[in-house]
Amino acid sequence: MNNSYNHSLSASTQLTQKSVNRCFDGEQRYYSHQSAATKTPMTFSIYLPDEALAGQRCPAILYLSGLTCNADNVTHKAHFQQKCSELGMIFIAPDTSPRSSEGNDVANDERYFVGQGASYYVDATQAPWAEHFNMQSYIVDELYDLLRSEFPIDSIGITGHSMGGHGALLLGFKFPSKFVSVSALSPVCAASESAWGQAAYTEYFGDDKSLWAQADASQMIEQVGQQYSSILVDQGAADEFLADGQLQTSKLQQACTKAKQPLTLRYQADHDHSYYFIQTVINEHIEHHWRMAQLS
Amino acid sequence: MNNSYNHSLSASTQLTQKSVNRCFDGEQRYYSHQSAATKTPMTFSIYLPDEALAGQRCPAILYLSGLTCNADNVTHKAHFQQKCSELGMIFIAPDTSPRSSEGNDVANDERYFVGQGASYYVDATQAPWAEHFNMQSYIVDELYDLLRSEFPIDSIGITGHSMGGHGALLLGFKFPSKFVSVSALSPVCAASESAWGQAAYTEYFGDDKSLWAQADASQMIEQVGQQYSSILVDQGAADEFLADGQLQTSKLQQACTKAKQPLTLRYQADHDHSYYFIQTVINEHIEHHWRMAQLS
Repeated sequence: MNNSYNHSLSASTQLTQKSVNRCFDGEQRYYSHQSAATKTPMTFSIYLPDEALAGQRCPAILYLSGLTCNADNVTHKAHFQQKCSELGMIFIAPDTSPRSSEGNDVANDERYFVGQGASYYVDATQAPWAEHFNMQSYIVDELYDLLRSEFPIDSIGITGHSMGGHGALLLGFKFPSKFVSVSALSPVCAASESAWGQAAYTEYFGDDKSLWAQADASQMIEQVGQQYSSILVDQGAADEFLADGQLQTSKLQQACTKAKQPLTLRYQADHDHSYYFIQTVINEHIEHHWRMAQLS
Repeated sequence: MNNSYNHSLSASTQLTQKSVNRCFDGEQRYYSHQSAATKTPMTFSIYLPDEALAGQRCPAILYLSGLTCNADNVTHKAHFQQKCSELGMIFIAPDTSPRSSEGNDVANDERYFVGQGASYYVDATQAPWAEHFNMQSYIVDELYDLLRSEFPIDSIGITGHSMGGHGALLLGFKFPSKFVSVSALSPVCAASESAWGQAAYTEYFGDDKSLWAQADASQMIEQVGQQYSSILVDQGAADEFLADGQLQTSKLQQACTKAKQPLTLRYQADHDHSYYFIQTVINEHIEHHWRMAQLS
């Protein structure tokens, strides 16, 4: 036991522990904290393998969830705990946006792809969104620093599903010094060219297309060029959102080719957009981040 | 492909397919049907590995869920699909009771451990419960026969969690000709001696303690003696319901000793009553049923 790491976190003044459940050889925990970036309480889940609980520094994966989700969906349905227990990896799942709560009146929209549950992990510039919707700053600055100060984290890889896959690709390439690895599941690859993203960015950024470009994963990859020795993307071949143009996976492939960014892109036969697909491939994503962490 | 098995089930007049999702090398499906036993619509989930989809007869596991659950909890949170895909096993999760729906006024109780979501898998004899609460007949006769007629099932093992662990032990020993294997997770081992079970059985059976005895897993095991070469039970050592006397695990151990029924009973350090515990041990239960099916 490394006494420099207080795994009960009893000394923390920033985090409130909401739950702890033993799961495989580790603990699934939930925490909440007051965010300066979003000016709201924020909740995240974190799986800590026994190595981390004993104070040993471990590689971590930051998982960004998709539209309508909060930390629960992936924590309950993605089945990452067994592999993270086996490898000794930390797995963190933040919420997808700020939310209204007692004393917090956060802007919202009746469309499920705009507003609460649909931040796109960007810092909005337009009213009423700019007040609370600063999820880029929340993820890559505030939460990132908080995690590193409160938990024995060695390195951080970033991944996510759908809108969260967009977030992982966007933030991974916009802030490559922060992350050692990037992967994505069924990502929205070109948010500014999907109907979902266009609706959201019209609200968050208005008509300034230079801001849209800075919030489009494929454009970001083209702009910054190769950053990782390889990235991994899995996509269900029978995904209805691929068919209707929300995901634009071919745009990601073109961007990686232009950027000379090695991309392993796998279209999985018959699979859809659900957590049944996520659980099918997530172990290989955890292993990807594990290998990249060993090389970093 | 064995053409005698129509895996699309399009010819079935009894089952309505509610959903299909590809998951690992197989499909997670939901079906509903009108039950003669409960006189209500009933829903179950079934995982069919590709072997079954191709018409090959596979061993199956019938999983009975705990208080307040329906088929969703285990299907979303227990993480059985990967192991069932690897081994080629079918996994079936029925609901925990009949429920009110349009045109069906089913009795209920405000206590979570009595009424809808809390059948205890028995046939109630008292009004108002006897009208619909016939879950023993539903599971071991109606659903059992329906599953065998509609899916390529080789043999059936029975397992479950908490109240469903009680159901698996009770029905496994009351109807041993129907099942090739029995296991349980965190089971209610002596329902007639737990506060939950006493409340339910007072409603379902009234004061006739001979009916209570026929609905108590440990008493049933003592009564019928050894039926299986071994049974497997996992229990979280930090389970709050173990501490407060709802589970009575020691009664099961005593009953198996008297009955000369080999029992592997594992108290897992630090684990609680949640699905985080279930996912931690379920693979070993699937493997237990797989081995027993090979020997049957």
